[in-house]
Amino acid sequence: MAIEIERKFLLANDAWRSQIQHSTRIAQGYLATDPTVRVRVKGTTGFLTIKGKSADGISRAEFEYPIPVEDALELLNLCPNVLDKTRHLISQGNLTWEIDEFHGDNAGLIVAELELPAIDTPFEKPDWLGQEVTGDVRYYNSMLSQTPYCRW
Amino acid sequence: MAIEIERKFLLANDAWRSQIQHSTRIAQGYLATDPTVRVRVKGTTGFLTIKGKSADGISRAEFEYPIPVEDALELLNLCPNVLDKTRHLISQGNLTWEIDEFHGDNAGLIVAELELPAIDTPFEKPDWLGQEVTGDVRYYNSMLSQTPYCRW
Repeated sequence: MAIEIERKFLLANDAWRSQIQHSTRIAQGYLATDPTVRVRVKGTTGFLTIKGKSADGISRAEFEYPIPVEDALELLNLCPNVLDKTRHLISQGNLTWEIDEFHGDNAGLIVAELELPAIDTPFEKPDWLGQEVTGDVRYYNSMLSQTPYCRW
Repeated sequence: MAIEIERKFLLANDAWRSQIQHSTRIAQGYLATDPTVRVRVKGTTGFLTIKGKSADGISRAEFEYPIPVEDALELLNLCPNVLDKTRHLISQGNLTWEIDEFHGDNAGLIVAELELPAIDTPFEKPDWLGQEVTGDVRYYNSMLSQTPYCRW
């Protein structure tokens, strides 16, 4: 078990694209949303992840297990909806921005996430960073799989 | 992924107790029930199991992963209810009867299960075997965690 501490932002402009160091396509679905049970296929690896409830909107318990990608693909068939996105990575010192560019019903939505070692870890805000949406449930991936961006 | 083919019976009498070869205490809870996401602590091992829907009431897809017992104990805290039972094993040729003796709110309920390699695998019915309840949803462990035997 780990504690996931994450802050989430919209993007102010497209300048981040020139800084991309790595991109991976991700398909993920939810076997349950309370608590969250997520199935993910990331490149050639499968993952099963359980996330507890967040008391503060920023941190929550996370249990993640790698599983065979064949299993993950079959488990995605048990999920009511599957999210499709490309995750772009941009390093910034010891931290890494994960920028999720959604496809399908969530096309047009781009969200930057920063995982922090502690709630009060200081970090620099790049010029391309927009409004913070940490804790806004509409942007939870589990919510986006149920109420996609095209229906907002 | 495996296909689980299972038949389930009540017990006609107590004669099975003299044939027990092994007994283990099991605590299990459900993070979700549609599809089933089960957390189990069996002795000193944890398991995370996902079961698909059954089309025929006998067989269904099962995905099981061992996880650290510390994780499993924490995940049980995320489950609304936790089932407590002792599983007794009785070998019969190549097959093994699993006899679940429930505790807590399900005390008084004892169920014998037989996992079969194929739906049509023949098996001998011991004298202590009672009425078949395969496919009766009340006896699903996920249902027993929500509507325990003491409330029937």
